[in-house]
Amino acid sequence: MTPTLAQLGEDRLIGMLTRRWPRSHRTLAVGVGDDCAAIRTKGSRRLLLLKTDAIVEGVHFQPGVTAWKIGWKALARCLSDIAAMGGEPDAALVCLAAPAGTPAARVRGVYRGLDRCAARFGVTMAGGETVRAQALSLTVAVTGWVAGSRILLRSGARPGDALCVTGHLGGSGGGHHLTFCPRLKEAQWLAHHTRPSAMMDLSDGLAADLPRLCRASGVGASLDIASLPLRRGATPRQALADGEDFELLFATRPSRLRQILHRWPFPTPITRIGEITARRGIRPSLGSHGYDHFQQP
Amino acid sequence: MTPTLAQLGEDRLIGMLTRRWPRSHRTLAVGVGDDCAAIRTKGSRRLLLLKTDAIVEGVHFQPGVTAWKIGWKALARCLSDIAAMGGEPDAALVCLAAPAGTPAARVRGVYRGLDRCAARFGVTMAGGETVRAQALSLTVAVTGWVAGSRILLRSGARPGDALCVTGHLGGSGGGHHLTFCPRLKEAQWLAHHTRPSAMMDLSDGLAADLPRLCRASGVGASLDIASLPLRRGATPRQALADGEDFELLFATRPSRLRQILHRWPFPTPITRIGEITARRGIRPSLGSHGYDHFQQP
Repeated sequence: MTPTLAQLGEDRLIGMLTRRWPRSHRTLAVGVGDDCAAIRTKGSRRLLLLKTDAIVEGVHFQPGVTAWKIGWKALARCLSDIAAMGGEPDAALVCLAAPAGTPAARVRGVYRGLDRCAARFGVTMAGGETVRAQALSLTVAVTGWVAGSRILLRSGARPGDALCVTGHLGGSGGGHHLTFCPRLKEAQWLAHHTRPSAMMDLSDGLAADLPRLCRASGVGASLDIASLPLRRGATPRQALADGEDFELLFATRPSRLRQILHRWPFPTPITRIGEITARRGIRPSLGSHGYDHFQQP
Repeated sequence: MTPTLAQLGEDRLIGMLTRRWPRSHRTLAVGVGDDCAAIRTKGSRRLLLLKTDAIVEGVHFQPGVTAWKIGWKALARCLSDIAAMGGEPDAALVCLAAPAGTPAARVRGVYRGLDRCAARFGVTMAGGETVRAQALSLTVAVTGWVAGSRILLRSGARPGDALCVTGHLGGSGGGHHLTFCPRLKEAQWLAHHTRPSAMMDLSDGLAADLPRLCRASGVGASLDIASLPLRRGATPRQALADGEDFELLFATRPSRLRQILHRWPFPTPITRIGEITARRGIRPSLGSHGYDHFQQP
């Protein structure tokens, strides 16, 4: 019997599907396994960042949600990944899938949200496609740029690094997941001023995402659960498991963290939540918390 | 009452949704309305081509279809659009949406088709995303490159140009739509040797696509229905209306067409099917044939 996607789980599924994909190859500087792919461009030291992501009605948003928030979320998710690499977004494409009976006004509302998010973060809406489907979904692809010397990967964390997050965690389902601001400015500042050892964005919850950063870096982490910056009303468990925080998780030398905290020009808080360890695994053990796209009820 | 997507139709829907999107803007050389978007890149005369497209189970393929053909089709559709601009593909991202109960083996088969198509046409699989959804669908985003001086647009056709297609038209639903070869080599050859005035790929059928090329160029066309190169068993009506031919439609000066036919190094036939006219509209009138994504039964 072949397993289903739910039995396999997201990380093993992706591992299986992309086993033969290059991690680095000809023009490919960064392949599958980081927040964005990065492509070398002839005659330039800049890398082209590429990211695609989708949101589906009934999974990532409910049918009753205000239309513009759907568009905002779809684009902002991709921008959060551009941020995670220290990049600057450039252009976006959007593929709308919708039932033929969808009111045109609702779709127009969705695109207003896309336009609003694009205008806010300096993204050019460059094109896309519309197809018929059984349910409303929006797939966005975004390009961005980053200097090759400034790119931030998941794979650079070193034992002794301080582990930090921006903003607050948990309870994103209360509304934050629809209207959040991707941490582009904060991430670009970090990339320029005090380059962290490793960075990623938190989309599936700390309990799912921190192990990914540790695996990519070949390290472990000890987490200070009591220090987690909780969103108002959220519990530590939610901060670990809810997902869709779209904050930055980064590791940096402790001396650099002091510089960062001293010069940080943004209202977004930075919280030290633990330390990178040579010993693999996460302590305390987080069990199987975190959002898995195929293992939800 | 707001109309539904089906009542509006695809072209009017896209017009409504993208009304405020720039056609050309800062880094954007070609925006919505052509086969790909084209982005300027600092310090280079090459343009970055971007395209995204989706295929949905029950709409673009049936549940019983062999898995690898789904992946092949999803990528090949985007490559056909890169071809239409005279470009060379580079990297691809893929977003898989699937029900949690999907057998992993089926999805692996789909990705084998992606990998096979990528290997065949020199595309680097760079990353992607997996999300849960009610139905299986695959959204692919592809990048490509084209010299700014060689890019082929829909908008350059001039009165007196010969109107031509590659390959055969109609009856693609018999199998061609799942395993076709995007006309990359043919299109690059045309872009390098005898640059056509305008080009696009035929995805929704000549009856839907030719008016798009004519509108973009501000011209009309007279079509010689009897000359349409029919796929074996297809009728002229099917050649106009079926869609998913994924052939090239181009307009070129008649003198250049002679050069093309003289030097053409490919087995793929080129057929002259009509002429570009100063008078707008298509003669004979094609009515409302052609595939509309939202107006199918």
